[in-house]
Amino acid sequence: MEQTVTPISEVGEFGLIERMKDALGESQDEDLLAGPGDDAAVYRAGKGRAHVATTDALIDGVHFSPDMMPLTYLGSKAVSINVSDVAAMNAVPRYALVTLGLPDNAYVETVEELYAGVRQAAEAYGLTVVGGDTTAAHRLTISVTIIGEAEERDVVYRGGAEPGDRLCVTGDLGGAYAGLKVLMEQREALEQKGSDYAPDLDPHRYVIQRQLAPTARLKTVQDWAERGVRPNALIDISDGLASEVHHICEQSDCGALVYEEMLPFNEETRQVAERNDDEPEHYAFYGGEDYELLFALPEAELDRLEAGGLTVIGECREAGDGVRRTTPSGEQRKLEAKGFEHFGA
Amino acid sequence: MEQTVTPISEVGEFGLIERMKDALGESQDEDLLAGPGDDAAVYRAGKGRAHVATTDALIDGVHFSPDMMPLTYLGSKAVSINVSDVAAMNAVPRYALVTLGLPDNAYVETVEELYAGVRQAAEAYGLTVVGGDTTAAHRLTISVTIIGEAEERDVVYRGGAEPGDRLCVTGDLGGAYAGLKVLMEQREALEQKGSDYAPDLDPHRYVIQRQLAPTARLKTVQDWAERGVRPNALIDISDGLASEVHHICEQSDCGALVYEEMLPFNEETRQVAERNDDEPEHYAFYGGEDYELLFALPEAELDRLEAGGLTVIGECREAGDGVRRTTPSGEQRKLEAKGFEHFGA
Repeated sequence: MEQTVTPISEVGEFGLIERMKDALGESQDEDLLAGPGDDAAVYRAGKGRAHVATTDALIDGVHFSPDMMPLTYLGSKAVSINVSDVAAMNAVPRYALVTLGLPDNAYVETVEELYAGVRQAAEAYGLTVVGGDTTAAHRLTISVTIIGEAEERDVVYRGGAEPGDRLCVTGDLGGAYAGLKVLMEQREALEQKGSDYAPDLDPHRYVIQRQLAPTARLKTVQDWAERGVRPNALIDISDGLASEVHHICEQSDCGALVYEEMLPFNEETRQVAERNDDEPEHYAFYGGEDYELLFALPEAELDRLEAGGLTVIGECREAGDGVRRTTPSGEQRKLEAKGFEHFGA
Repeated sequence: MEQTVTPISEVGEFGLIERMKDALGESQDEDLLAGPGDDAAVYRAGKGRAHVATTDALIDGVHFSPDMMPLTYLGSKAVSINVSDVAAMNAVPRYALVTLGLPDNAYVETVEELYAGVRQAAEAYGLTVVGGDTTAAHRLTISVTIIGEAEERDVVYRGGAEPGDRLCVTGDLGGAYAGLKVLMEQREALEQKGSDYAPDLDPHRYVIQRQLAPTARLKTVQDWAERGVRPNALIDISDGLASEVHHICEQSDCGALVYEEMLPFNEETRQVAERNDDEPEHYAFYGGEDYELLFALPEAELDRLEAGGLTVIGECREAGDGVRRTTPSGEQRKLEAKGFEHFGA
């Protein structure tokens, strides 16, 4: 009997997720508000309350290199990237489960360093680690599940943007990718020049911190709650801005125009891009790992937010307009969705 | 500067968990009812309701060998072992998150087979897969997180057993380990005799099924709810009976006496043990992976349960009596806690 095998690269990460949803079938659970396909799953937990649940793993050799990633940072980052998904539902994190896969060369101290980072992040975000699993593994792995909560009516999905909404981002973009570039350059220099070489990382502190120790934008979500602001659509920028704009447009059934000249960059990000003959916009669109929030807000709501906390980078359009970007010269081009994928091209 | 490194084998899996709890510090969350240290974490979710959360991973080369474990079974088992932890809190599972780590030789069909097993189990236990994470990895990995629920007053912990309680188990013991023995024997025979050799697995169907496709005792928990029975202490048998009896005794601050001659075995388990010159009691105490329930119940409550559904295998004693077993000849010996650990001796 001949068996068909389909390389995962042929369907891509998002294609694979579709296959998985097909394999699972439809849910009949009436307390389930959102299954796979948003930043986190959402289900009712008590009258008017919703819980959100999300999980993300970091694996040695796939998501990080141990020689560039101190263990404390790794523990902290594993929590932050999950809190970012919780924030992207307009919810706050409550509980975390931490699974560690430990290779032969791991020691008790490895675990303690990782957990020091987990604790720092847990305290910063006000969540509690309630359990997990620890096992032998071939490569160092840390996988975190976070359960968060919100009023049911406050949860924000990817699918609520309306034509005319402003598209906004928090913070600045492309920094995490610039930081990765710097770390890889320095590793190469170390290999070439030997261990006497002391790299000067000081001019790149900001972008390196963006790569190694990202902060989830939970404070933004808390600020919205205080001001009574609720975006129409919300997603975190983990795969790159281009991919996230497409997710919002697909699920909101709208189009978008992104103003390339409005994208916010840190000066260090610009410098790294320039030195590499890259455009910083490319880092923002396709670099990933910025863990900022992208949200769609009616123009009238903009005044209720502090001007310094966000940048308007575009607008939602009718679905027929597609997803486009304006270049600084005023041209409009299609915004390709291609983001950072761990599988395929 | 000299750095101390402590091999994990020196502190063992349970010692490592203590270090991790120390590294995390005490929780201040007033809705948290139980953190690390039971089968699952427990927190309030609505008035009088509790949610339980648990996570467990299966990794190629650590927890299973791909040549002995069909992918559909693997998907199903990864769900079952987590449902077993939920049942061990006297709760029912509601939602699952599934994380897959896929090596280079994985195909779309690999994922679909795994998910067919996940779906079968999800349907059998009445839970819904609501999300997860999929990533490249060095070895095939499936990690499942399950969120279950119960009335707050119905949750049963490890720590409620009283001297005089009967110690009971569901089903039979040692079968999963007997199944593993058979599978390993057959693999060796295949290697020696070549691929023309067709092993006769039929006499071992039951124990192989116990190893590859365990069933969590959710029906037992549902039966208790219907009969209004609530054990004083409850744990699932994943590491072997000896280890689980010790967990209950430590957390209940009591001793125990296990009647070795009362341990329930399937005939196939006895046969495999005999052929290997082993004692089936050894499989029950130290084999692990049976996913039966061990519970402590006041004697008066026994009549309220169906006789066929459980075996009384011992009794709880005063803490000073320690944890002992009676051999068939009437002797009493210390019951060693040593169970199946993925780290250390």
